[in-house]
Amino acid sequence: MSDLFLVADVGGTNTRVALADGLNIDPESVRRYSNAEHPSLTVILDRYLQEVKTKVRGACLAVAGPVANGVARLTNLDWVIDPDMLRTATGAGSVAVLNDLQAQGWALGHITKLRPLVQGEEAPADASRLVVGIGTGFNAAPVHMVNGGRIVPAAESGHVTLPMRSEEDLQLGNYLSQTHGFPGVEEALSGRGLAAIHGFVAGAPRPSSEIIPLIGSDPEATRTARIFCRLLGNVVGDLALHNLPFGGIALCGGMARAMGPHLVELGFVDAMHDKGRFSALVQSISVQVIENDYAALIGCANSLR
Amino acid sequence: MSDLFLVADVGGTNTRVALADGLNIDPESVRRYSNAEHPSLTVILDRYLQEVKTKVRGACLAVAGPVANGVARLTNLDWVIDPDMLRTATGAGSVAVLNDLQAQGWALGHITKLRPLVQGEEAPADASRLVVGIGTGFNAAPVHMVNGGRIVPAAESGHVTLPMRSEEDLQLGNYLSQTHGFPGVEEALSGRGLAAIHGFVAGAPRPSSEIIPLIGSDPEATRTARIFCRLLGNVVGDLALHNLPFGGIALCGGMARAMGPHLVELGFVDAMHDKGRFSALVQSISVQVIENDYAALIGCANSLR
Repeated sequence: MSDLFLVADVGGTNTRVALADGLNIDPESVRRYSNAEHPSLTVILDRYLQEVKTKVRGACLAVAGPVANGVARLTNLDWVIDPDMLRTATGAGSVAVLNDLQAQGWALGHITKLRPLVQGEEAPADASRLVVGIGTGFNAAPVHMVNGGRIVPAAESGHVTLPMRSEEDLQLGNYLSQTHGFPGVEEALSGRGLAAIHGFVAGAPRPSSEIIPLIGSDPEATRTARIFCRLLGNVVGDLALHNLPFGGIALCGGMARAMGPHLVELGFVDAMHDKGRFSALVQSISVQVIENDYAALIGCANSLR
Repeated sequence: MSDLFLVADVGGTNTRVALADGLNIDPESVRRYSNAEHPSLTVILDRYLQEVKTKVRGACLAVAGPVANGVARLTNLDWVIDPDMLRTATGAGSVAVLNDLQAQGWALGHITKLRPLVQGEEAPADASRLVVGIGTGFNAAPVHMVNGGRIVPAAESGHVTLPMRSEEDLQLGNYLSQTHGFPGVEEALSGRGLAAIHGFVAGAPRPSSEIIPLIGSDPEATRTARIFCRLLGNVVGDLALHNLPFGGIALCGGMARAMGPHLVELGFVDAMHDKGRFSALVQSISVQVIENDYAALIGCANSLR
């Protein structure tokens, strides 16, 4: 019997599949498939296992969409993604379907390539942790260590009220409310959020991919990014108080990686720690940006052990 | 060997001790002791067990203060409160020390005397729940069902940014920031919070015990209470999105009970459900106020089973 696990990242556009030996992802085994070119996830997994010519002992998916009772949904595809499908498609004995942020939560403590933002203080190995995903959308995933396993509850933290502290924040909140009638965190802290903040600052939105290269040279892009970093710090500080992740906070997702080099300079840490008499508590919590491309796959492998 | 559990509520002023048979608290067994009149919790527990003339199989404390690794702290007393002390003082084989909000979390689903605020939708028995405590302070305790047990993570949700949606909210936030330099949720949503909102509304603070009887008759008291209920709804709605407690939200604590009869009329529910495109999700979650005096004691008993 094979000792290998099949692990996969199922996004809205592509599915990436790999083999894991324990927590090690074999780089040679990584394949990427366009979802649009395949009728179902079953067909992709069949094709993958034929290509790599191996059997697997376990299989785990990290899906970019909500997962309830093991059943995942993608917003743009009608695919069946559940443990039964995964068991049938792979022949694996142990299977799991995770949300992609939950998969990142299972990876914490087992990945390299992290950008440190706040050092924080040492904590026991079983201290809770927190993943914050900032990309197309925004969400958080608390990670609680329980009897050698992990509990990673689902959340919709991108849709709580954007914390506003000043007249300018309030005006921004009103501007962002135009989209969905509510100043939710995700309206500011996502790819489209950065674009919208630019609209507030400069009178016209601009794609985040155009704004980010101009940070530091273009005044409007820089001001936009500064607001984004300050709001992100405020939100992450609030999430720290909600979840007390003394084991550390990890930011992940495309916007976290793209903004990573600018976060400290543009005020993220100062805003995160600006919590009145609870500043010292928040300061004790480490913060890093996950820059490891395999994090979700490693999390999948860890969840199967 | 006795089948009874010793359960106790350790507050800042008094300690209440009782015997539980399964989840049933024997009302005859309840005794209350003034902390100031006793040198230690050990002396209180010794005295109690001599008074009731019984041995106990398990013992659990609900302490009104933070608990880390089973060790509890009271802000005003230097007492040692930990599992070793509890084991020695009671001779019980199984012991636990919980925060009082965690104890309420262990009681959910096992208590009567609840005031319904929002009916919500049916959820599976293993759906997560949430306790929100509003009294001297403010905090939340998410409750996750795991393999027949419960995980109730610690939090400091009373110290996150108060959600502000309007010019008036912002002015109130600035007013409340005078105390600790930060507009934290607890500065508004607690006993002293209600007093402070009255200060904002009427120019002078007033004790919450004076404000509450005047709701509906005195315009300033009524306006104060309306702001409190609206802010509480906004905060509870955000907590619902952070924690997705499809098994229901329970408000507890002195301020929740005192404001309970006014919450719906003064806008709590409308504010809770005002979450843009996530309103329907929040509406599906039931909300109740715990009016059962024994809830923390029942939670203690449940945690020992």
